[in-house]
Amino acid sequence: MAVAQTATAGQRRERGGRSARREQRSHGASGPGRPFIKRAIPTYDILSEDNLVRIETAADRILAEIGIEFRDDPAALDHWRRAGARVDGVLVKFEPGMLREILKTAPAEFVQHARSPEKSVRIGGDAVVFAPAYGSPFVMDLDKGRRYGTIEDFRNFIRLAQSSPWLHHSGGTICEPVDLPVNKRHLEMVYSHIRYSDRPFMGSITAEERAEDSIEMCRILFGSDFVDENCVILGNLNVNSPLVWDGTMTRALRAYARANQGTVIVPFILGGAMGPVTNAGAIAQSLAETMAGCALAQLERPGAPVIFGNFLSSMSLRSGSPTFGTPEPAIGSMVIGQLARRLNLPLRCSGNFTTSKLPDAQAMTESTLSMMAAIHCGANFILHSAGFLDGLLSMSYEKFVMDADLCGALATYLDGVAVDDNQLALDAFREVGPGSHFFGCQHTIANYETAFWDSEIADNDPFEKWEAGGAEDAATRANRLWKKKLAEFEAPHLDPATDEALKDFIARKDAAMEDAWY
Amino acid sequence: MAVAQTATAGQRRERGGRSARREQRSHGASGPGRPFIKRAIPTYDILSEDNLVRIETAADRILAEIGIEFRDDPAALDHWRRAGARVDGVLVKFEPGMLREILKTAPAEFVQHARSPEKSVRIGGDAVVFAPAYGSPFVMDLDKGRRYGTIEDFRNFIRLAQSSPWLHHSGGTICEPVDLPVNKRHLEMVYSHIRYSDRPFMGSITAEERAEDSIEMCRILFGSDFVDENCVILGNLNVNSPLVWDGTMTRALRAYARANQGTVIVPFILGGAMGPVTNAGAIAQSLAETMAGCALAQLERPGAPVIFGNFLSSMSLRSGSPTFGTPEPAIGSMVIGQLARRLNLPLRCSGNFTTSKLPDAQAMTESTLSMMAAIHCGANFILHSAGFLDGLLSMSYEKFVMDADLCGALATYLDGVAVDDNQLALDAFREVGPGSHFFGCQHTIANYETAFWDSEIADNDPFEKWEAGGAEDAATRANRLWKKKLAEFEAPHLDPATDEALKDFIARKDAAMEDAWY
Repeated sequence: MAVAQTATAGQRRERGGRSARREQRSHGASGPGRPFIKRAIPTYDILSEDNLVRIETAADRILAEIGIEFRDDPAALDHWRRAGARVDGVLVKFEPGMLREILKTAPAEFVQHARSPEKSVRIGGDAVVFAPAYGSPFVMDLDKGRRYGTIEDFRNFIRLAQSSPWLHHSGGTICEPVDLPVNKRHLEMVYSHIRYSDRPFMGSITAEERAEDSIEMCRILFGSDFVDENCVILGNLNVNSPLVWDGTMTRALRAYARANQGTVIVPFILGGAMGPVTNAGAIAQSLAETMAGCALAQLERPGAPVIFGNFLSSMSLRSGSPTFGTPEPAIGSMVIGQLARRLNLPLRCSGNFTTSKLPDAQAMTESTLSMMAAIHCGANFILHSAGFLDGLLSMSYEKFVMDADLCGALATYLDGVAVDDNQLALDAFREVGPGSHFFGCQHTIANYETAFWDSEIADNDPFEKWEAGGAEDAATRANRLWKKKLAEFEAPHLDPATDEALKDFIARKDAAMEDAWY
Repeated sequence: MAVAQTATAGQRRERGGRSARREQRSHGASGPGRPFIKRAIPTYDILSEDNLVRIETAADRILAEIGIEFRDDPAALDHWRRAGARVDGVLVKFEPGMLREILKTAPAEFVQHARSPEKSVRIGGDAVVFAPAYGSPFVMDLDKGRRYGTIEDFRNFIRLAQSSPWLHHSGGTICEPVDLPVNKRHLEMVYSHIRYSDRPFMGSITAEERAEDSIEMCRILFGSDFVDENCVILGNLNVNSPLVWDGTMTRALRAYARANQGTVIVPFILGGAMGPVTNAGAIAQSLAETMAGCALAQLERPGAPVIFGNFLSSMSLRSGSPTFGTPEPAIGSMVIGQLARRLNLPLRCSGNFTTSKLPDAQAMTESTLSMMAAIHCGANFILHSAGFLDGLLSMSYEKFVMDADLCGALATYLDGVAVDDNQLALDAFREVGPGSHFFGCQHTIANYETAFWDSEIADNDPFEKWEAGGAEDAATRANRLWKKKLAEFEAPHLDPATDEALKDFIARKDAAMEDAWY
């Protein structure tokens, strides 16, 4: 395989060179190191217009006949009163079409700026952004097993994300740093995203003042005027399904919207628990809950960026446990995608979900099924692209690099198929003819370096070579890979004056608050 | 989770009852034990009309300007001469449109009959049939590692396929039984499919007389008149890519077609080796080679069932080794699917491919990516649905049951989303309202038993319970599962007179031939 050998040597000499050539590919531009992916394949629309309208009508009836509670946030209720909703205590009911009208001020797509301008991402339209998983209290690796996450784990996952050419975003609460006080965690988390990554990131949503702190740190980084006019941070807000928005969430939501920053609105619906056990009903509920959250952001500040999110899940009929990466939520994502496009809103869907407690065959069966659904449904912002194990409860070091590798495969998948004279290769057929091989032909030599995506983790060697090399499984290779990436990591440059200003802000906040551990 | 507990008890009591209810689902009918799947979701069309025409035009030019060699089969060359192709020695060139015209006699879909009529499968249209993997010389399991396959391994995989509710077909050369003489293997292989399975199966293609023996055994099983009028066996024929059909294959191909039996026509194109390194060119080549094989079957017997097959693969740029389950072949499958539908032929695509040597994370990442592509591209007959590891060289007992489990998930995926009053569940929202849960509500109780697909292998338990249970990975659970299935296996009834007649046929054939080991 002379050509392949040359390729190997070529890569070792100048990987950047290869990347650069990759990026010249006519079909899409999703080579390593791109700020985000532009999908070159269509979205997959599985439901007919009639059935989409039936689901939209069911959502409208849920909103009009059952309503949504907005708890502990009088200002949110005032917004709804002024908008003409029927408010009875904390229960708000919406006339059909009312929320759709309000949502017309939301942008169909927007740019989230990074401190390195070339790392800024577009969210919406044909853009696809991969972000690390979010919110696990535990971390795990093959050496030390499962334990509570710390700020050092948090920083390590930022480093692993920053060092991956296949992720585009630094994420948010990658894991909970439980070694820090609950009321001060957000300061170190936002600082760590700024310090160890130069990609876009997400801020705190656990309290209105923490959301405001997160945004204030962005003002130090980007300048207040820039922040007022541009999206530089996202907040991920969860509905308390079914049909409840808690004040903690809506006040944080309004804080982000008020500052013209982005919000991701996400109902978490485990079918049979927080929603009906049937898919269509859970989808209608998700649509109703998400529309209400996105609309509230528009009432707080018309034109504030919002991302239409969802999180459907199922449960095991044998154990009653939640299940992730199963077919029903995957297929549900396709429908959610169609509904979001009909609202002309950026979409967040699915992710690398699994209930497996190890980076094993179950983990990647469920993750791949789920990620393929996110790719096909047209998701623009894929939170939870890397790291989850243990039913969202743990971030795994090995799974993180496996998932990032899968994101690389999916970037190539999203490039689709180019159809031009070079790709059709008629000259190659003329050169080679029947019964010969294409190894050394001119067309192969001219194209092999950009021809195929190459996994960092997969072992493609013959059995004997693999066995002689120690007969390792993918988890063992992933364990070696994340350690290598952390050992080689270099933090991107941060202006010392900015760094100081951020540290001063944190010190002042720290001094002003007693530590709170609950 | 009271409901789920009840469900568990319910299942233990009467799994059949649950299956029966599953099968009453309004959306599709893909519960366990169905003879085949009727897809309720659309195919995924990724290329525009213009680009499809470009690829078809490239295929027509390959056929007209470069041509295909038909070696060691004068009768095939006579067919082409009579059909008006330009024959120069063994090289055959075809005017654009000629093969499409010949292919008009091929059925768009057909039934392959099983010895148990309720197990017969439809191939084509909206039907999806999962068949075990095909052709590995080695077998492996976690206890004994890799070794050459034997007839007992061959029978074990038939037993595992027959005992899976998610597979529909017994397959063909599931593994090579190297303990039997090369020239007599096919007799025991066909007999084993008949004896240990009552599903449809495939016959030998390694020599014309072995193909005829396979069909003759079907005449004993089904009766000669029935066989002449119905498809009861398939042969899987490979092109010697690029652009060569060997006489061994075309003579076997013509033997199946002559007997009105089905042929699967499959080019195996490793991009950069047996075809161009660019996807569009490999697809055009695959189209040209497959059209020629399917057309030859029509010339031998117009109306004989043919399946439009393909097998695209890539290679590692680091090692030059073949890779499977990568994004380029997956996306290529989508295009092949569109091209096959434009020819109005049943489609075989993709499968559970991987180069991993273990049933690990790599194995199921690659397999799931590949199988999702097969599902979306509209494949009707998915050979290689279960068992492959080691780059097609090994059948794995653990991987087999993992893949069959994935086929179950994909059957549910293919059911899509039903949208009716029960599924939309407005009554459930009225009953539960905001802030409560759906566990015990009437709608959940009425629907939970058929709500979610439930994996046989996935562990969805909480971490602590999983750890207390031995902290097993999926491969360990799969190892236990295949042993349980083999221990519980009962062969389906076979009429003793038929069994005797088959044994007599084999004995006569055996006596008439010296053993050949190469």
